[in-house]
Amino acid sequence: MLNLASETAPGWVDRIWPHIDTLLVDHAHCEKKAAGSAVNLMFRYPHIDAILNPLSAIAREELEHFDLVLDVIRARGIRFARLEPSPYAGRLHKALRPGDPGRLIDSLLICALIEARSCERMKLLAEGLPDPGLAAFYGDLLESEARHFSTYVHMAEALAPRADIQARLRELAVHEAAVIADAPDEPRMHN
Amino acid sequence: MLNLASETAPGWVDRIWPHIDTLLVDHAHCEKKAAGSAVNLMFRYPHIDAILNPLSAIAREELEHFDLVLDVIRARGIRFARLEPSPYAGRLHKALRPGDPGRLIDSLLICALIEARSCERMKLLAEGLPDPGLAAFYGDLLESEARHFSTYVHMAEALAPRADIQARLRELAVHEAAVIADAPDEPRMHN
Repeated sequence: MLNLASETAPGWVDRIWPHIDTLLVDHAHCEKKAAGSAVNLMFRYPHIDAILNPLSAIAREELEHFDLVLDVIRARGIRFARLEPSPYAGRLHKALRPGDPGRLIDSLLICALIEARSCERMKLLAEGLPDPGLAAFYGDLLESEARHFSTYVHMAEALAPRADIQARLRELAVHEAAVIADAPDEPRMHN
Repeated sequence: MLNLASETAPGWVDRIWPHIDTLLVDHAHCEKKAAGSAVNLMFRYPHIDAILNPLSAIAREELEHFDLVLDVIRARGIRFARLEPSPYAGRLHKALRPGDPGRLIDSLLICALIEARSCERMKLLAEGLPDPGLAAFYGDLLESEARHFSTYVHMAEALAPRADIQARLRELAVHEAAVIADAPDEPRMHN
């Protein structure tokens, strides 16, 4: 699914469900971080014209989703607050090649894989959560995660031959699968 | 106007006009930085619930404006690229009080004053630019700058008594006037 090199183990939703409030707070942070990553790339690469509008659009949509998750959090009577993040994104970024254009390509493909994994997890939540309202909420969100995955890959493909990008995407997907397999046992979107 | 403690000197638009392409590139960077500042505050203060949605909305609107300025830049056949920024924002932030809630209040009020100064400058551009299309472009943008000014002040007023916020806003406006009076003679939105 979406170029991921592994599938989430069966039972993930059942293990998450008792901690759904924590997962929602983590999810809101993930949307905020996704917006922050897109904006950071706009700061780092102002001279790469082809990526500026797509990054701006992605950042806006992630911020809209952040607001939506906040609404759900408040409706459940819980509070959004700081939360120890999953080591997932930090470990993923250890695979960045040091020099450009490799570093930019890898940044875009890692963002793509994070979107892909979020999409896979949201599909599991949409299909498996016992709360129909929350399941529908995740069903609505997962389409844009899939679209963001494609947008990030297309941005990378504007920077190097498609075959090279696809090969690097497969390499990074293997890295992503190793990182998520080794994630700590805390209720997070990417653990 | 909008609590600013000084008015831009007459002739600013005439001095800027020969460098309008540079000003547009600086303006695009300003919109991006405004979005970045709002997102940064969301990262720094996830526990201050009242500011999250307004910051998210401002960041989205600044990113939309960034896209609009990019359109203008491309239509003029120039390129968006890195540009030595005005020292304005950095010098403004030297007035931040070190501890919260003072630091957050000051951050919000400094963002408010940057929006106010942008609004004042855009009004001058709307009224004084010899190119009617560009003048109309700035006429359309300045309303949201004024609205962002109000939103930032309201956010601050949710954190401390209104009289205290207004007093601090007056102090910071005096600081802003000194900073912009001392700005280098380069064509920038805030020089």
